[in-house]
Amino acid sequence: MDLDELISENISDHFPYVPGIQPLETKKFVKLNTNENPYPPSSLISHGIIDQINNLRFYPDSSSLKLRQSIARLHDVHPDQVIIGNGSDDILNLCVRCFSDKTKPVGFYEPSYSLYKVLASLNGSKTCRVSFKDEMFQIDPDSIIQKDTNIFFITTPHAPSGRTYENSIFSAILEKYSGILVLDEAYADFAKNNALELLDRSQRLIITRTLSKSYSLAGLRVGYGVSSKEIISVLNQAREVYNIDRFAQYIAETSLKDRDYFSNNLSKIIKNREKLFLTLQNWGWKTYESGANFLFTRPVDCFGNYGASIAKKAFEFLTENQIFIRYFPEHDLTSSYLRISIGKQEELDMLTECLQKWQTIDQRV
Amino acid sequence: MDLDELISENISDHFPYVPGIQPLETKKFVKLNTNENPYPPSSLISHGIIDQINNLRFYPDSSSLKLRQSIARLHDVHPDQVIIGNGSDDILNLCVRCFSDKTKPVGFYEPSYSLYKVLASLNGSKTCRVSFKDEMFQIDPDSIIQKDTNIFFITTPHAPSGRTYENSIFSAILEKYSGILVLDEAYADFAKNNALELLDRSQRLIITRTLSKSYSLAGLRVGYGVSSKEIISVLNQAREVYNIDRFAQYIAETSLKDRDYFSNNLSKIIKNREKLFLTLQNWGWKTYESGANFLFTRPVDCFGNYGASIAKKAFEFLTENQIFIRYFPEHDLTSSYLRISIGKQEELDMLTECLQKWQTIDQRV
Repeated sequence: MDLDELISENISDHFPYVPGIQPLETKKFVKLNTNENPYPPSSLISHGIIDQINNLRFYPDSSSLKLRQSIARLHDVHPDQVIIGNGSDDILNLCVRCFSDKTKPVGFYEPSYSLYKVLASLNGSKTCRVSFKDEMFQIDPDSIIQKDTNIFFITTPHAPSGRTYENSIFSAILEKYSGILVLDEAYADFAKNNALELLDRSQRLIITRTLSKSYSLAGLRVGYGVSSKEIISVLNQAREVYNIDRFAQYIAETSLKDRDYFSNNLSKIIKNREKLFLTLQNWGWKTYESGANFLFTRPVDCFGNYGASIAKKAFEFLTENQIFIRYFPEHDLTSSYLRISIGKQEELDMLTECLQKWQTIDQRV
Repeated sequence: MDLDELISENISDHFPYVPGIQPLETKKFVKLNTNENPYPPSSLISHGIIDQINNLRFYPDSSSLKLRQSIARLHDVHPDQVIIGNGSDDILNLCVRCFSDKTKPVGFYEPSYSLYKVLASLNGSKTCRVSFKDEMFQIDPDSIIQKDTNIFFITTPHAPSGRTYENSIFSAILEKYSGILVLDEAYADFAKNNALELLDRSQRLIITRTLSKSYSLAGLRVGYGVSSKEIISVLNQAREVYNIDRFAQYIAETSLKDRDYFSNNLSKIIKNREKLFLTLQNWGWKTYESGANFLFTRPVDCFGNYGASIAKKAFEFLTENQIFIRYFPEHDLTSSYLRISIGKQEELDMLTECLQKWQTIDQRV
C-alpha cells in the first residue's frame, strides 16, 4: 500500500514532539528528566474518588464549570476568562489552531518549549523563529514587535534555562505588538512573580498554566488558559467539547482547594532547588538562577573543560547509573548543559554523589 | 478589540459541535438523551484506584502500551494496530487531520454523526456530503466509490436510526474505493455483528470504538482505533503525546478485563431495547430495528398524525416532565423522529407512561 498520496499536506511535513524517556516502573531509578513533582498529589483526592466512579457512566460537564469557577476565584478573574485543557498542551494547540494559519504566522523563541513548532507544523501554520541575542536568554521586546507574526509564544520562566523575566518586558511588548501574546507559565508557581496582573492591561494576552508540575498531577493532564472573555470564546470554538473527563475535573478542583499542602510542597522544592544550585555553583558549574522546578547547569570535567561533548558524557554517565535527566543537544545554547528536575532531597543526594564520581573520571578515555 | 483579523481562516468559518443537554445533577430527571449506559462501570475499578493516586505525579505512558495490548488481545490484532484516543472523537479528529485537507476531501453521509463535518471545518478540509437515497438509510457502495474523496466516514450501526449494515456492503466499498474508509463503530457492542473481520482484507480500513457507551465510561473519555500498522503509525504522528491520562489508562484496562459484567450489562440493555421496541411498534410508531443502545421512533398523536411539529411537541412534553431525550430538527429524515437512549427498566417505564399521557392530549391546542 502506498499511503503517501493519501496523507494530508500538513502531516506529510510534520515532525512529532519527542517526550523525555519514561523508564519502566518496575525498575529502580531516579527520575529527574520531565519536571515532575517529587511529592504525591493532595490526599483530599482519595476521600471522594470512589463516589466519582459510579458517575463515570455519564458524560463530563463539557464546560468544566466548577473547575473554571475554582480557578477564577484563585486568580480573581471571571469564570468566562478561563478555559480548561487536557494538559496546557491542549490550550497551546487551541491557540495555534485559532490564531495562526498559512498566512498568519506563529512566532516563538528558540530554544524554548519545543512543542510550539510541532503544533504549528501540525496546523500547517507559517512560523517565525526568533533567536536569543546571547546565552542569557534575554527577551528584546523590539525583536517581537518588529516581526510580522499573528501570535507569539513565550515560555516564562524560560525553559530549559529556568530564568525569569520582569513584567515590564511583557508590558512593553503588549503596548506595541498587535498580535496575540501567549505567556506559557507552566512553571510560574515555582517563581517569585508571574504575569497575571497584566491581564487587566490587554485583551490580547493569554496566560497558560498546568497542574502537572506544581500540583503533582502530571499523570492527569489538566491545564488551563486565562485571558479576556473574547479570546476564551474563540478558543472554545476549537475545543473538543468533552476534553476534560470527570475524574480530571474532580481531582483538579479538589487539589486546588488544598492550599496549605500546595504551598508546603512548593517551599520544599524551592529549598531543594536552592541547595542544589549552591552545590553546582560551588563546583564551578555555570548554573542559571531558576524560577522553575529544574536547574540548567553546565558540567565541568576534572580538567576544567566544558562543552557539548562533556555534557553528553555526564548525561550518559547518569543514565548508566539509572539517574534520568534531560539533555538537549540540538541547539548551541543548550548543548553544553543538562536540565535537572528538582526531586526529593535523597534523589538529589544520589544525583550529586553520582556527578561527584563522574568529576573524578578522565573524560578523554 | 477587533479580534476578527487575528482569527485563523479555519476558525473564522467554523461551527462547533453542540452536545446534548446535561441537566444539573442535583435535580431529579430521567436522562435518555446522550446514549449513556444506565449501569455503573465495572466494580473492579475501585479496588486499585487509590494506588493510582500516588503515581499521578508522574506523566502517563505516552504510548498507552498496556491498554493497547489488552485491546489487541480482545480483537486478535497486533498492539501496533491499535491507537488510543481521548474518546473516539479524538481518533476521528486524527483521521481528519492526517487524511484530509483543502484538496483532499472528507466524505460522510448526512444525517449521521454530526461531528465529522465539525472536524472537517476545524481542519479547513473540503467536504463531500452524501445523501441517503431514502428513509431506510441504505448505503449504496457506488455512491461512495464514485465520489472523489480521500477519506470516508460511515457510522455503523447508523446514528441516529440505529440500523445495522451487512459487511458485504463495506467489502464492496473496500474493493473499489481507493481512499481511507473509517467505520465508526461507537455502538457496535450492542449489535449482532461488526466489521472487525474486514481488517484482514484492506490496509485502508480504520475501525473506531469507544468505551463510553458499552463500558459505562462516558465520563472518562477513552476510545480507540484499529487499522493496519501503517495507518496507525500515521495517526500517531498527529496524536498529542500524553493524550490519555493515568486514570483513564488504568480504568479502561481494568474495565476490559471484566468480561462477564460487560456481557451481562449488554444483555440487559438489549432486552430493554427490544421490549421498548415492541411497545412503540404496538402504538403504531414507526421505529427502526436497532443495533445500538437507542431507538429512533416516530411519534403519532391521538389523531394518527405524525411529522416534524408532532415530534417537536412530544420532545417538549417529555422535557417539561424532566425526561431528556434527543430531537434532531435539522434534517428531513430525522425531524419527525425522537432518539431515545436505552436506560434502566424503571426509566423506560417512566418514559412510556409519560408518552402514553402525551398521546391522550389534543396536540392542535
